[in-house]
Amino acid sequence: MRYFLNILCPDKKGIIAAVTTYISSKQANILDLLQHTAIDIDMFMLKAEFETDEQFDEKNFREDFIDLGNKFQMEWSLVLADKPVRAAILVSTTQHCLYELLLKHEDGELDCDLPVIISNHKKLAHVAKQFDVPFEWVDYSKGKKFAEAEIDRICRHYDTDILVLARFMQIISAELIDAWRNKIINIHHGFLPAFQGAKPYHQAWEKGVKIIGATAHFATEDLDQGPIIAQDVHHVPESCSIKEFIEKGKDIERRTLLTALRLYLSRSIFIHKNRTFILGKL
Amino acid sequence: MRYFLNILCPDKKGIIAAVTTYISSKQANILDLLQHTAIDIDMFMLKAEFETDEQFDEKNFREDFIDLGNKFQMEWSLVLADKPVRAAILVSTTQHCLYELLLKHEDGELDCDLPVIISNHKKLAHVAKQFDVPFEWVDYSKGKKFAEAEIDRICRHYDTDILVLARFMQIISAELIDAWRNKIINIHHGFLPAFQGAKPYHQAWEKGVKIIGATAHFATEDLDQGPIIAQDVHHVPESCSIKEFIEKGKDIERRTLLTALRLYLSRSIFIHKNRTFILGKL
Amino acid sequence: MRYFLNILCPDKKGIIAAVTTYISSKQANILDLLQHTAIDIDMFMLKAEFETDEQFDEKNFREDFIDLGNKFQMEWSLVLADKPVRAAILVSTTQHCLYELLLKHEDGELDCDLPVIISNHKKLAHVAKQFDVPFEWVDYSKGKKFAEAEIDRICRHYDTDILVLARFMQIISAELIDAWRNKIINIHHGFLPAFQGAKPYHQAWEKGVKIIGATAHFATEDLDQGPIIAQDVHHVPESCSIKEFIEKGKDIERRTLLTALRLYLSRSIFIHKNRTFILGKL
Amino acid sequence: MRYFLNILCPDKKGIIAAVTTYISSKQANILDLLQHTAIDIDMFMLKAEFETDEQFDEKNFREDFIDLGNKFQMEWSLVLADKPVRAAILVSTTQHCLYELLLKHEDGELDCDLPVIISNHKKLAHVAKQFDVPFEWVDYSKGKKFAEAEIDRICRHYDTDILVLARFMQIISAELIDAWRNKIINIHHGFLPAFQGAKPYHQAWEKGVKIIGATAHFATEDLDQGPIIAQDVHHVPESCSIKEFIEKGKDIERRTLLTALRLYLSRSIFIHKNRTFILGKL
Repeated sequence: MRYFLNILCPDKKGIIAAVTTYISSKQANILDLLQHTAIDIDMFMLKAEFETDEQFDEKNFREDFIDLGNKFQMEWSLVLADKPVRAAILVSTTQHCLYELLLKHEDGELDCDLPVIISNHKKLAHVAKQFDVPFEWVDYSKGKKFAEAEIDRICRHYDTDILVLARFMQIISAELIDAWRNKIINIHHGFLPAFQGAKPYHQAWEKGVKIIGATAHFATEDLDQGPIIAQDVHHVPESCSIKEFIEKGKDIERRTLLTALRLYLSRSIFIHKNRTFILGKL
Repeated sequence: MRYFLNILCPDKKGIIAAVTTYISSKQANILDLLQHTAIDIDMFMLKAEFETDEQFDEKNFREDFIDLGNKFQMEWSLVLADKPVRAAILVSTTQHCLYELLLKHEDGELDCDLPVIISNHKKLAHVAKQFDVPFEWVDYSKGKKFAEAEIDRICRHYDTDILVLARFMQIISAELIDAWRNKIINIHHGFLPAFQGAKPYHQAWEKGVKIIGATAHFATEDLDQGPIIAQDVHHVPESCSIKEFIEKGKDIERRTLLTALRLYLSRSIFIHKNRTFILGKL
Repeated sequence: MRYFLNILCPDKKGIIAAVTTYISSKQANILDLLQHTAIDIDMFMLKAEFETDEQFDEKNFREDFIDLGNKFQMEWSLVLADKPVRAAILVSTTQHCLYELLLKHEDGELDCDLPVIISNHKKLAHVAKQFDVPFEWVDYSKGKKFAEAEIDRICRHYDTDILVLARFMQIISAELIDAWRNKIINIHHGFLPAFQGAKPYHQAWEKGVKIIGATAHFATEDLDQGPIIAQDVHHVPESCSIKEFIEKGKDIERRTLLTALRLYLSRSIFIHKNRTFILGKL
Repeated sequence: MRYFLNILCPDKKGIIAAVTTYISSKQANILDLLQHTAIDIDMFMLKAEFETDEQFDEKNFREDFIDLGNKFQMEWSLVLADKPVRAAILVSTTQHCLYELLLKHEDGELDCDLPVIISNHKKLAHVAKQFDVPFEWVDYSKGKKFAEAEIDRICRHYDTDILVLARFMQIISAELIDAWRNKIINIHHGFLPAFQGAKPYHQAWEKGVKIIGATAHFATEDLDQGPIIAQDVHHVPESCSIKEFIEKGKDIERRTLLTALRLYLSRSIFIHKNRTFILGKL
């Protein structure tokens, strides 16, 4: 079996040695280790991927690790790498982000399961059908409370680990966010923190910026303010119209959302005080 | 002689033909012509570079052009391309932008005169000396009003066309801005409109952005809100400290300021309602 | 009606004025004009888009233009902009470029007709069906000569203007290239002129390059040597495997091929001595 | 004291644990650890930075490490991180790369000593003087053999660790390369492996490429074929002349050379079969 062990704690001497020695003592073999110290805030982060043999006892590993964790004041998590993450895709009527996820998945380039597509419209049901993924329509006409309860129910029904808002044009309420804390990835079509809120491309054009961008972030109660996971940008020639901003932006959106999801899947994201640190390559 | 004719007006049929015919009628030869219609606001922009012979009468060209200008409600300007623009550099204690301008100028890659370097510190006087450019120290201890009067006097003394704030760490007052309207280029070390004000790299780091940037803009009364001329960005690896943000940012700053100045020199900047349009290549 | 007039000729004084005056004399209105002089070879290029009224007589325009064309030794072409270009897509078994073209077309972001998809395999027939485009399988088992005759026949049957090789894994023979001279766009998955021939990503990995790229070019008799239309690149982290090169490369390929096709559709490509010049924005 | 331990060996289970345990057993504290397995060739690379206390015995560490090294067939090196690397700069008449190194060094952003500037011309002696670095002119008129003996003597005299060819327009002979194997960094003004040899910008322009680049590599007997350390590129607008290629290229050259030197200084470069692998951020 392969496991990911992620650690976040105040920086101190000896953490790497303590952790690697501990893993070895459990007869596990480290395959990959990344660590970083954020010197501006003296925080240490480590991600280790290790392989175990048949005798490995996960419960025992966890119990014995508690002492080490306490000693260094670690926030830590251990997850089985072999079990695919299950990501529900939420979408409204725009298809470019949805297709990107489905096509990469079909080509074997997105290492997760896509158990369900949820939408507040029926427009993209045929896309779900093409790729043989269940499509669940959620009726927002009965109110957000009702609709979000449905989303929550569907996600649980499909044993979902994470929600990916692939241009889902509904503001998520505090309740649903709380139920899926740091498990909802949204793509915002602006280079946050600039251009929050509606019509970011229009805002950007009015302002005369020379570069447009997109931002993938965890959804939080504060709209467009959650921890940023990934961002990308594109220079825009001067003669671009708003329509062309939107067209060019779509390519940035789809690749930024994909990057953010991949970082999540590779357990590369650490969150500390509403910002992320990424350990891993894009 | 070579001239630049720049035109900004509401879009209508026939402008290009009218202008090119007019230029030809004055026995001038068009060398280069760029035009663009901003379809979102129906505004037409044109930049023509033309060559004249000895009989060319600039006064006559201007007078006869008035009718055409009025017919199409043009804002227009005619400038002699052969006469080098004279750019004063204002600097405090950071040298990277200053060196960039001086080195490019020395290598023949910055097509203007650099008649004077003005500073509120004496620290970089030796750099001015190396490159044989007059250095004028301005005493801010006597107050901004006094100091800015000095700056204004020095710029006029050196027959300056434009002021380039190459990391000049003083807020310019409304008076000086008004006296040099759209003739003061500033480099802000953040990707505007995000991260206005002080310490933009610290702000960006706190926010956890994945890309940092710099913005060259015309200085206006509203700090960091003037028309954006050029922007550039750089992806920052996750493990960057604030110090590394600043280091990486310096390279973006110097090249963005240089780009903005070059766009000014090539008469490529059109300003309409506090945003720019650029006709020309970077 | 809207027309594109493209001109390539040795540089001389007065070409812009002569051409704009000519267009005006035919009661046509210039909408857009781009021109460039390649000073290293003293060649002048111009692209004009103009609008005509009902009296406009294309035949007359062409006949009367001959004198002007001869005077300046112009290579010139006049095409009706309103009539959509018809692009046949040729594909083998890899779907990312095909999907890119179909999705952009469906979203109204690719301004041409896609009358037919031709393939030497049947694997992607279902994609054609989804997007409701005729799919024609060509049997290469009967030899290249036979198969290419089929391709030629199919393209003519569907009234095709241009062939887009969207990862079509067959070398095109001189006969077919000659029949569609400068009308076959190929995407090569390497940063030409480096890494010609087979397995460019493997070549690039072996060489240890830090940036990978793709190149869209017109197919010529010399494999991977035709005029380059568009190129793009991506920095690759050191730890990339060949498999990851290929994955990352696919995104570069699809956007580079799309860019090249768009440049063709906007009549922005000028060819001179086996290299292109592009007048227009990407 | 801080040390860098670099390891390159065939991939096997248990290397990370063995190495981290070994370092801990010598009472050293790991500050930073990066490792990578190149799965295409099954090679393992590790870079560890560790801190020692006063009792640390480097000789003992080396001797006891031999067994571990042999067990895993490691190529390994241990260097003291606290001792600055001494880099000699070799330059001809072009100043942009020289200034880049000197300015970054002066700003505290290049973590090495620059003990000497060596040149086959006297043109840039004044720059050396400004920055207070000894300048040594080498007379190539007496032949390459004589001149290179001088270079070798000067470098040894100044206790140099590495030679940085900052646009040094002389081909280095096999003798000098052999004496400084993998210790001569060259900047080539082309995107290798394309455009080897003379006038790469002219070659690139003739070929009509849409992106230009520069390559920093270790000098080897085969001109422009040595292991690539860093590369960077820039999109070039179509209307660029060769002169503009050269101007734009200079910015790429200086930053690519700087990047390569920094990677060397941070011990991030691993060489295997004439290609590099980089462990570390750019």
